[in-house]
Amino acid sequence: MNYYGNPITRLIEQLSALPGIGGKSAQRLAFHIIHLPQEKVDALSSAIREAKQQVKYCSVCCNLTDDDPCSICGNPKRDHSTIMVVEDPRDMAAYERTREYYGVYHVLHGAISPMTGIGPQDIHIAELIKRMDDTVKEVILATNPNVEGEATAMYISRLLKPLGIKVTRIANGVPVGGDLEYVDEVTLSRALEGRREL
Amino acid sequence: MNYYGNPITRLIEQLSALPGIGGKSAQRLAFHIIHLPQEKVDALSSAIREAKQQVKYCSVCCNLTDDDPCSICGNPKRDHSTIMVVEDPRDMAAYERTREYYGVYHVLHGAISPMTGIGPQDIHIAELIKRMDDTVKEVILATNPNVEGEATAMYISRLLKPLGIKVTRIANGVPVGGDLEYVDEVTLSRALEGRREL
Repeated sequence: MNYYGNPITRLIEQLSALPGIGGKSAQRLAFHIIHLPQEKVDALSSAIREAKQQVKYCSVCCNLTDDDPCSICGNPKRDHSTIMVVEDPRDMAAYERTREYYGVYHVLHGAISPMTGIGPQDIHIAELIKRMDDTVKEVILATNPNVEGEATAMYISRLLKPLGIKVTRIANGVPVGGDLEYVDEVTLSRALEGRREL
Repeated sequence: MNYYGNPITRLIEQLSALPGIGGKSAQRLAFHIIHLPQEKVDALSSAIREAKQQVKYCSVCCNLTDDDPCSICGNPKRDHSTIMVVEDPRDMAAYERTREYYGVYHVLHGAISPMTGIGPQDIHIAELIKRMDDTVKEVILATNPNVEGEATAMYISRLLKPLGIKVTRIANGVPVGGDLEYVDEVTLSRALEGRREL
């Protein structure tokens, strides 16, 4: 029902189409936006339009960027012989926050998932294969530790190993700061399998 | 840290400034927006700008509207002698959804709250007083059943009663469909006080 007039109703509809924003949140956000000063509304509206316009895929690693190549691929201080394969730019950002990884990335933008009809051709695997030359020493598969991520890692590893490239997978185990009591059985088993001598 | 390039970082900052949207949600929304088709991004961006531009207060009831007077104040079928006072346009919408109220509204856009420095002059009480003439038979105070809402109702009732206007307050009681076990003591006491013969 249109209790608020068309512009507000239209804004509520637009906001509630976003993921994780239900009808109530969309209402709350819409009223917040209407009460913001004009310049903040313009900034929000422009940020949305500009992000869509200016952001493209990096031609090397397929990360989202406004520069091409992106700031990581274009950085000569990074180790370009090590490529970490991630599903999503947010995974890349998560590894950047560790400040422990100095190689470069490859962003797949998804994982193989037959259940939802996503095959190897729907994610950026071909672009990864094209990057494989003599300079590449190691490919680290850092796809998510779930069914789709494991399947994707397995698929990529089968493509790369015949090329004679070292392919590794990030370790499974108990999360640091976690409580063993709340860790699932599969993770506990993997942590046991992957135990290291001290 | 700027892992994603400026346009995305700017969008994430803009989104995370909205109420109820933290850093993680803002990231998720930003990536969702970037992957939307261009026309949907334009629609969202325009809806934000237009809602701010076109929405104003109804000169009668202070509801947010793009028409003046709003669709309720301008509707001759509504009972203009009964005015329900609410804090927020969403409260008005909530009562509209009941389809049980045929009077008109007055939207205060807030409640008196000395703790946060909101006094009677900061909400639309003066506009309510101006509406009081011989045609008004009843003012129903439907501010929220919390400290601020009760204080606001009390304040308005003290202003209106000397004018000889019937002032009522919506009932407190147990919510329909609720479970007595989970209802707080104050509500239970109020429900007992307000009991009616069957």
